Amino acid sequence: MNKKAIVLSSGGIDSTTAMAIAKAEGYEIYSISFNYGQRHSFELKKASEVAKFFNAKEHLIIDIDLRKIGGSALTSDIEVPKYRSQKSEVRSQNIKIKDSRLSTIDYRLSTIPVTYVPARNTIFLSLALAWAEVLEAEDIFIGANAIDYSGYPDCRPEYIKAFEKMANLATKAGVEGKSHIKIHTPLINLTKGEIIKKGISLGVDYSLTSSCYSPDKDGNPCGLCDSCHFRLKGFKEAGIKDPLIY
Amino acid sequence: MNKKAIVLSSGGIDSTTAMAIAKAEGYEIYSISFNYGQRHSFELKKASEVAKFFNAKEHLIIDIDLRKIGGSALTSDIEVPKYRSQKSEVRSQNIKIKDSRLSTIDYRLSTIPVTYVPARNTIFLSLALAWAEVLEAEDIFIGANAIDYSGYPDCRPEYIKAFEKMANLATKAGVEGKSHIKIHTPLINLTKGEIIKKGISLGVDYSLTSSCYSPDKDGNPCGLCDSCHFRLKGFKEAGIKDPLIY
Repeated sequence: MNKKAIVLSSGGIDSTTAMAIAKAEGYEIYSISFNYGQRHSFELKKASEVAKFFNAKEHLIIDIDLRKIGGSALTSDIEVPKYRSQKSEVRSQNIKIKDSRLSTIDYRLSTIPVTYVPARNTIFLSLALAWAEVLEAEDIFIGANAIDYSGYPDCRPEYIKAFEKMANLATKAGVEGKSHIKIHTPLINLTKGEIIKKGISLGVDYSLTSSCYSPDKDGNPCGLCDSCHFRLKGFKEAGIKDPLIY
Repeated sequence: MNKKAIVLSSGGIDSTTAMAIAKAEGYEIYSISFNYGQRHSFELKKASEVAKFFNAKEHLIIDIDLRKIGGSALTSDIEVPKYRSQKSEVRSQNIKIKDSRLSTIDYRLSTIPVTYVPARNTIFLSLALAWAEVLEAEDIFIGANAIDYSGYPDCRPEYIKAFEKMANLATKAGVEGKSHIKIHTPLINLTKGEIIKKGISLGVDYSLTSSCYSPDKDGNPCGLCDSCHFRLKGFKEAGIKDPLIY
């Protein structure tokens, strides 16, 4: 029997590629997604398609209403910023911004953006950890990336390491010395372009994925939010056409 | 303005006493409880009464269906063991068990019992952490106890310390160096009797609390599960009558 891997899946580029890597390493896939009150809940539909694509043994969708906690543009009525990343890049080149569209946007350059969902990866990894205990799995895959990302604190390698340490103290298996939980972050040091190239080499069909924070009612991406920005940048770097229509 | 404390509340002895301690230390109370599919959801009613008793600024109840994950007698159809603790104590005194009621019980002596909910404290603390970020609070109180408890891995001091470390890497405040999350465990080294004496000295009304894993439909405690066992033992040690009717 293959070893079991729990894979956190948002139906986006990163988690889908992480799932492809787990599959290629011979794991049996247990996909877990979260219906957390995100405005882009269209991603759950894509996550299900992705789970099917990889013949996941199970795809669990956990409902957890993070809107009650709030604090993020993704789980409240705060508007998702457009052009934020573009503006950050302009700033980092020390160029004076002249685009009038940019001047009215609420953003904090070089800081954590309003799309950050407080403690999201910690909450999701905790639930994945619970499922790992029940399945007696030791391996959790997360598509966290610390290169082409929005600066979220819970995507950094030192955070992942601290979570893994905590996880091994939190659980039954840790106490009984029977197993060791490992948090796999195969994408942590890759650029978005490298992630896409890796996925393509493993046969990923990226038309099944969705990345946009603010898609229209049919799920079509806006092309302007941080997440679309990094996706498009990645495909450009990889020299591949994004199969989605913008 | 008082400092804000997030207090995890189950409406039981420990979390209620932890809330009393936070209150006595001058914190403004933000109580958080979880509707996680527990068979003893009666505790949520009591948690609301406790929050009112301490004039909590807010009492948040987060819905999260841990039944989908399962793996525990508290969130599945596995039976809650009776007499488990009593039997463990008999065993620890190396006395041969003669009570025929005990011989049919599924339990694992000196190991983690079936009432353990996988990663529960990690999930709950993660959600408390998210709320702390939104409220810009730095202090989270949890009534974890490593003396008179069921041997759950996520009640141990080394676990709490690892969670705190992870929390400070997970969050915005940690990155920006603005604040420092502290997980307060004021009860971690107290016996149940000491906890109750402490609570009484702070004016806690324990008739508002509920501890039983398997109460009847009116919320009356069974008196036989682990949780009732430790509660009754605590009141006995404290020389105080439990106000609940068994």
